[in-house]
Amino acid sequence: MLEALKQQVYEANMELPRRGLVTYTWGNVSGIDREKGLFVIKPSGVEYDELTPEMLVVIDLNGNKIEGELKPSSDTKTHLELYRAFPQLGGIVHTHSTHAVAFAQARRDLPAFGTTHADYFYGPVPCTRELTPEEIDEDYEKNTGKVIIETFQNRGIDPVHVPGVLCASHGPFTWGKDAAQAVYHAVVLEEVAKMAILTLTIDPDAQPAPQHVLDKHFMRKHGPNAYYGQK
Amino acid sequence: MLEALKQQVYEANMELPRRGLVTYTWGNVSGIDREKGLFVIKPSGVEYDELTPEMLVVIDLNGNKIEGELKPSSDTKTHLELYRAFPQLGGIVHTHSTHAVAFAQARRDLPAFGTTHADYFYGPVPCTRELTPEEIDEDYEKNTGKVIIETFQNRGIDPVHVPGVLCASHGPFTWGKDAAQAVYHAVVLEEVAKMAILTLTIDPDAQPAPQHVLDKHFMRKHGPNAYYGQK
Amino acid sequence: MLEALKQQVYEANMELPRRGLVTYTWGNVSGIDREKGLFVIKPSGVEYDELTPEMLVVIDLNGNKIEGELKPSSDTKTHLELYRAFPQLGGIVHTHSTHAVAFAQARRDLPAFGTTHADYFYGPVPCTRELTPEEIDEDYEKNTGKVIIETFQNRGIDPVHVPGVLCASHGPFTWGKDAAQAVYHAVVLEEVAKMAILTLTIDPDAQPAPQHVLDKHFMRKHGPNAYYGQK
Amino acid sequence: MLEALKQQVYEANMELPRRGLVTYTWGNVSGIDREKGLFVIKPSGVEYDELTPEMLVVIDLNGNKIEGELKPSSDTKTHLELYRAFPQLGGIVHTHSTHAVAFAQARRDLPAFGTTHADYFYGPVPCTRELTPEEIDEDYEKNTGKVIIETFQNRGIDPVHVPGVLCASHGPFTWGKDAAQAVYHAVVLEEVAKMAILTLTIDPDAQPAPQHVLDKHFMRKHGPNAYYGQK
Repeated sequence: MLEALKQQVYEANMELPRRGLVTYTWGNVSGIDREKGLFVIKPSGVEYDELTPEMLVVIDLNGNKIEGELKPSSDTKTHLELYRAFPQLGGIVHTHSTHAVAFAQARRDLPAFGTTHADYFYGPVPCTRELTPEEIDEDYEKNTGKVIIETFQNRGIDPVHVPGVLCASHGPFTWGKDAAQAVYHAVVLEEVAKMAILTLTIDPDAQPAPQHVLDKHFMRKHGPNAYYGQK
Repeated sequence: MLEALKQQVYEANMELPRRGLVTYTWGNVSGIDREKGLFVIKPSGVEYDELTPEMLVVIDLNGNKIEGELKPSSDTKTHLELYRAFPQLGGIVHTHSTHAVAFAQARRDLPAFGTTHADYFYGPVPCTRELTPEEIDEDYEKNTGKVIIETFQNRGIDPVHVPGVLCASHGPFTWGKDAAQAVYHAVVLEEVAKMAILTLTIDPDAQPAPQHVLDKHFMRKHGPNAYYGQK
Repeated sequence: MLEALKQQVYEANMELPRRGLVTYTWGNVSGIDREKGLFVIKPSGVEYDELTPEMLVVIDLNGNKIEGELKPSSDTKTHLELYRAFPQLGGIVHTHSTHAVAFAQARRDLPAFGTTHADYFYGPVPCTRELTPEEIDEDYEKNTGKVIIETFQNRGIDPVHVPGVLCASHGPFTWGKDAAQAVYHAVVLEEVAKMAILTLTIDPDAQPAPQHVLDKHFMRKHGPNAYYGQK
Repeated sequence: MLEALKQQVYEANMELPRRGLVTYTWGNVSGIDREKGLFVIKPSGVEYDELTPEMLVVIDLNGNKIEGELKPSSDTKTHLELYRAFPQLGGIVHTHSTHAVAFAQARRDLPAFGTTHADYFYGPVPCTRELTPEEIDEDYEKNTGKVIIETFQNRGIDPVHVPGVLCASHGPFTWGKDAAQAVYHAVVLEEVAKMAILTLTIDPDAQPAPQHVLDKHFMRKHGPNAYYGQK
């Protein structure tokens, strides 16, 4: 079942090592079929060079495994919470990409220092609060999802406008209309995190770009008046 | 038309990913035929591995599209302004190369810390002011060009002596006698920006090289008494 | 003798240059057969592209060479001390990997800033004290091992929970249940050292992750209730 | 003439781009035949992928070109001064490798922070003073050599024990018993400069390793009691 989606999610997973975003098995991609209410995700702890589309695991929106020989990614419940809360999401990625992790470990939002950031993320990429001991005991991966959702709701951020988050002390999740776009956003997030760290190396007090510059760049690529690309 | 120029500009564009200067489609190269008053530029948002010379777009110096199926780069008006203001330019490059962007995001000139810089850029690479909200509303890409020109004119910089600029909160433009040399300068700018960030890491108060050292190195490669290379 | 172990140790050695952990000959891997009380180690100063399994040297737990034409690694006595003191170790690696060396040269523990670290190292990776002039005169490599053991004993660290150490002014040793896992831990140590330096670049006062987060991640991959991967 | 030496020097030059030490044509290697009093050097401004052994230029110790169609490297007089002052040198390399240049641009000695450094450089790698305007006017490249020699003489450094230098605002020269070893030292210098910058990122007040540690590591690889490697 879901052969086309499995192929897409497989290819998106394989893009992670090609883009230098994962070491060993640290990362996973999922993609959802909204009509069927089923998503497909990487199995846990499988090396990328051994992965095949058939190994992917199918999960429903109640978290039940529908198909697959292997255990799904240990982060499956985080994906599940995000798919349930944010119906616009078609694909989700988790990585431990080096520079994005550094911001998560510093427990800081990634500031919108320039137009490379603003072309894809409309405002800072937020860093969540830490989970409480109780939240970790109860259900770590589910509550990781809940804290991401809380962050976006409390701060009034639209997850389509800011397609990623930094989980405190952990690392990034990104998403998109499908698995390929979620990976694209993971690549961009890592690159703008690197640019931001270098900006702070030059000037530890560097400030975000002016709002009118951020507005212009985001709107140039998104929304009804977008004019970047061939569409 | 302009088959030879298209081939040159195509090859210069393809050099950007080979040199690690672009992620995805973030960058564009153009080259001009000064006799005909026409320039050739990359189409907007096309992946480098799908680009062919035939896809390049021909534009005249009034900004009209003369040939090409595709939309030209969204930065075309910036290229146009620079070609109109600086008649010595034969090629122009825009990238989001990581270390040059970091200086642009810190809104600082790139200091001439050493001879690697001075071999190609005679003095600091200037960072422009930010555009005003009015300038962005009126015509963002055209006014990006205008602000670059203003920077060189107000500061009395010859664009042949300093073949590049940092646009505040955005990134670098470089240029040269043709598209290939403009790319060469983009590679050098990225490398000297990296060297400068590392220099500031060692000593946040590092000072530029003495003027007589900068003079010597620039003159060793440029001008009537140059003696580097085989000419 | 020990052909299967030699092949394993050979492959673990060859993984070091593939993972970018060594320049020239700076690094060595060993693996032990606990039943026979013999370990196999890289010969000293041999280039990786000239290494073959037959060149590996067999040493007993009194430090005698049992087989091999070549001199064993100059760090052999350090490996020997560690195998004698820590019976759980099946393989040991020494490298001069860049970011781990930087922490060793700063003579600082590598803090547990996040979950990437906690997935493999339960708490900070300790940095030893410097050897005294007398310890160096007496037997440098043996006493390097002794000081590592002292560090773990004085601080009450279980070497299975923290499978690596930073030798002050020198560099890292890592270990594991076999040579392959020791190399895996060397790769992880280098990556989390890089993440830590970037974290400190963003915030020089960055603090370790909360203990309950560190506990959760270590236990998710280790111990009786581990649930990461397919086992 | 000097076919074997030309081949050696050619191969040493080609190692520079393979090791990532040069961008474009920024770098040159020479090697000397002490009996004949002739050295062989890269021609000026020639791309590495176009270089052949026959293109190398032969120079005598009075600085006369003895053989070769092309102009020798613009840095030839610096090589010449070093060969004349330091009879132990068999090969010399100049690069603009990124991290070594950063120390030169910060005008700081590269401190001996650890054993990787001490294995090859016995003490800090010195940074020269700047040349005066008069020295530059008189003969820039010759006086670059003179200032390197002055640095070693004033500070009582043996160039065999410290086989490299940082020219202020410029970049590194390294040397060795032949061209291949000079390149080896250029690779080590770049790597230990990178380690040093990362060490300073962790602790801007980091101190050199204790003298007895530096002594031990240098003596382990050099001098009558060396015991590293197979000799």
